[in-house]
Amino acid sequence: MVNRSVQITSANVLDLRVPTSDQMLGSDPFHLQPDYSAAVLHLQTDSEWRGESIVFTVGAGTDWICHGIEDLCQLIVGTSLDDFAEAPIRLYQRLIDHHQLRWLHDGVFRMAAGAVINAMWDLWAKSQQKPLWKLLVDLEPEFVADCIDWRNLRDALTRDEAVAILRKARTDAPRREAEMLQHGPKAYCTAGWLGLSDEQILATIDKLRSQGFDSFKMKVGRDLQQDVRRLRFLREAVGPDCNLMVDANQYWGIPEAKEHLEAYRDFDLKWIEEPIARDDVLGYVALAETFADASFDFACGEHAASPVIFKQLLQSGGIKYCQIDATRVAGVNDVMAIVLMAAKFGVPVCPHGGGIALCNMIQHYGMWDQIAVAGHSETQLVEYIDFLQESVEHPVQTRDGHYVAPTAPGWGLEFVPGFVDQYRFPDGTAWRYRSPTRKGVIFEATQD
Amino acid sequence: MVNRSVQITSANVLDLRVPTSDQMLGSDPFHLQPDYSAAVLHLQTDSEWRGESIVFTVGAGTDWICHGIEDLCQLIVGTSLDDFAEAPIRLYQRLIDHHQLRWLHDGVFRMAAGAVINAMWDLWAKSQQKPLWKLLVDLEPEFVADCIDWRNLRDALTRDEAVAILRKARTDAPRREAEMLQHGPKAYCTAGWLGLSDEQILATIDKLRSQGFDSFKMKVGRDLQQDVRRLRFLREAVGPDCNLMVDANQYWGIPEAKEHLEAYRDFDLKWIEEPIARDDVLGYVALAETFADASFDFACGEHAASPVIFKQLLQSGGIKYCQIDATRVAGVNDVMAIVLMAAKFGVPVCPHGGGIALCNMIQHYGMWDQIAVAGHSETQLVEYIDFLQESVEHPVQTRDGHYVAPTAPGWGLEFVPGFVDQYRFPDGTAWRYRSPTRKGVIFEATQD
Repeated sequence: MVNRSVQITSANVLDLRVPTSDQMLGSDPFHLQPDYSAAVLHLQTDSEWRGESIVFTVGAGTDWICHGIEDLCQLIVGTSLDDFAEAPIRLYQRLIDHHQLRWLHDGVFRMAAGAVINAMWDLWAKSQQKPLWKLLVDLEPEFVADCIDWRNLRDALTRDEAVAILRKARTDAPRREAEMLQHGPKAYCTAGWLGLSDEQILATIDKLRSQGFDSFKMKVGRDLQQDVRRLRFLREAVGPDCNLMVDANQYWGIPEAKEHLEAYRDFDLKWIEEPIARDDVLGYVALAETFADASFDFACGEHAASPVIFKQLLQSGGIKYCQIDATRVAGVNDVMAIVLMAAKFGVPVCPHGGGIALCNMIQHYGMWDQIAVAGHSETQLVEYIDFLQESVEHPVQTRDGHYVAPTAPGWGLEFVPGFVDQYRFPDGTAWRYRSPTRKGVIFEATQD
Repeated sequence: MVNRSVQITSANVLDLRVPTSDQMLGSDPFHLQPDYSAAVLHLQTDSEWRGESIVFTVGAGTDWICHGIEDLCQLIVGTSLDDFAEAPIRLYQRLIDHHQLRWLHDGVFRMAAGAVINAMWDLWAKSQQKPLWKLLVDLEPEFVADCIDWRNLRDALTRDEAVAILRKARTDAPRREAEMLQHGPKAYCTAGWLGLSDEQILATIDKLRSQGFDSFKMKVGRDLQQDVRRLRFLREAVGPDCNLMVDANQYWGIPEAKEHLEAYRDFDLKWIEEPIARDDVLGYVALAETFADASFDFACGEHAASPVIFKQLLQSGGIKYCQIDATRVAGVNDVMAIVLMAAKFGVPVCPHGGGIALCNMIQHYGMWDQIAVAGHSETQLVEYIDFLQESVEHPVQTRDGHYVAPTAPGWGLEFVPGFVDQYRFPDGTAWRYRSPTRKGVIFEATQD
């Protein structure tokens, strides 16, 4: 068997940070001056393949995740790809249920564990010469179900129900795969960053519409009057045929959310994203009830830190759009569980994109969901942001408002060497001569 | 003013780990071989006082938290105690809402932020020559309320309600303080660790009863028949007058929890602790409904990672015992919010103890709650474990089953120098010559 000899020989972890805050790209009410960044893991092997993954971050703290990944990699150097591919749940549990490390919980620990798990999936896909989505699509339903830790989930979705969902989609999978090789997942664009003017946003939307996009998201939250004025301007400018969504990035408490959202009823918005804290399940339920008759439903997930939080958001009806992230939870295994729960509850999977190469990852989940789980593309939108695509050997491609199905083996996450030289923190050329107050934890945001 | 000149001049972070797993102390279904450990922060100042705090852990991963604390300390070196004491919320928000770091969430990030915040509270209390509980008791109600970040909490508790709770307790505070200087918070003991035999547990209980304790907790979860047999044995051995509680440490999913707990109805148990995942709010609600007519209610919180999770557990009625931890959330400020929410919902605060010096910290919260918030001692039990009290200059003391009110300034967390020399990781004498497979992340538990 071709993989028999593939052993992990060493791990290399990079801290990459891009000073995107110079242009105020990516700004929102909480993340005032983000520097799009990534903890990058390379697993070297004794074969021609290398396992790669990233954890997307917004600057300071990337080194915390790098520290964790390096620690965890002690558990993987010397293991084989075959061991992993035989039963990926074993590595998942070895990390997530480590009898001492599990004390560290979600956040840094789960993200670091996800990096290791995702790099192994990357390696496996490369050894099969398949893009990651294709590896997932080709897995047996029972194998997928056995990748999932069911302990805390089976009250919402049983293993048998998951297998049934996958089997049902499988009957139509060849046709769906052929269709998606023509048109990949439908994309939406985050166009309205806080730091931009109305005119800049409209110009961005007009450019994107000419490229075939019809769904756009705005950042809101800090100033009710200004937000409402902007939404009115944009809805009038783009007309009734575009999808408009807004994202408050958890800036409101529940009373403020209700106050702001009452003023949002007139603009035919599709969803309200992260109106409140990422872990406030009962808060989402309360908002869903209050705004049951509004045009919009609620979306969240990019900061939902565990499958258990997703389970509750989905089973309670609190959210109607499930925004998985590729690097917040513990890798492919956790995302499989979340996508399957979303399918059970009929909630469209609309992955969170952004930053450095995050879109390169989520496109695979969009493909897998739309071919092999939900088995359709009628309701899902996958976030698309064209930031920093020059950083990777295999940039994301879009056509007519859709992703183009990726073809590079694995995640397609290989970085361009010059990019690494420039943005490695803190010694890359982009950082070496910067003021200390512009780097790391002591780079504190100036409010407006 | 005496504090005017107190400046933070440097920070020193220690990784302390005790190989407690040699004796299987502290074992539970998930934490099979814990090594009780702590990330220890010392803030040096230009005064005679030093700010100290710890984050309790169970071995591997302590270095992750140390890394984080060191990074955060860049924000505090050079600041003054006066700046902190004027408005502690400013430091809290500077850390928790840091525009880039907040991406890291709860877990390692919140614990590290808590270490910094708690060390500043320690320094403040020392500069006032007061134990921490006394500093808190003497604060004005409005000042306490202004220490809290209300953004995500005010749907459950408003600032005005918090002030009213504190004002009400204040009318009786001098009497309560005098009473608690006679008898501190009532304690309970975790006696039934998984690694011990029935007879060892009973001997421990008998010894503790002779010291005045009447409330005992067992670890359960992995083997229904064995757990039931043990509970029957212990209830018969101790008679009907002791409080017996059990702790499953999140080992069950909801269906397993229901199955196990049906078999627990006969033993007059007081509470079931962590039957399910720490963040499964709706799961707690479901269990509370299913077992509404049982002798027991539900307890959790030692792993609840944010005030928002506590808010939901309290407002939903999912838990009837609120188990705050001293080092899981972001320090005194977060705990103030949680204790006040518990008071609003009439839920007793029963802090989580253990490990290295955790009991030394939680006793202050028990004192504050029972004097200045709940204002009574009728329902609360504070966990007491006598592990490793030789590690500190000011060991916890108990008398007649109660804590003795601590009198050392601050938290009373000063470690004995010889203890540090022995258990500093990885170069202390207890670690230097140990096998690599017995240290850190690659120390993997053997199942039974």
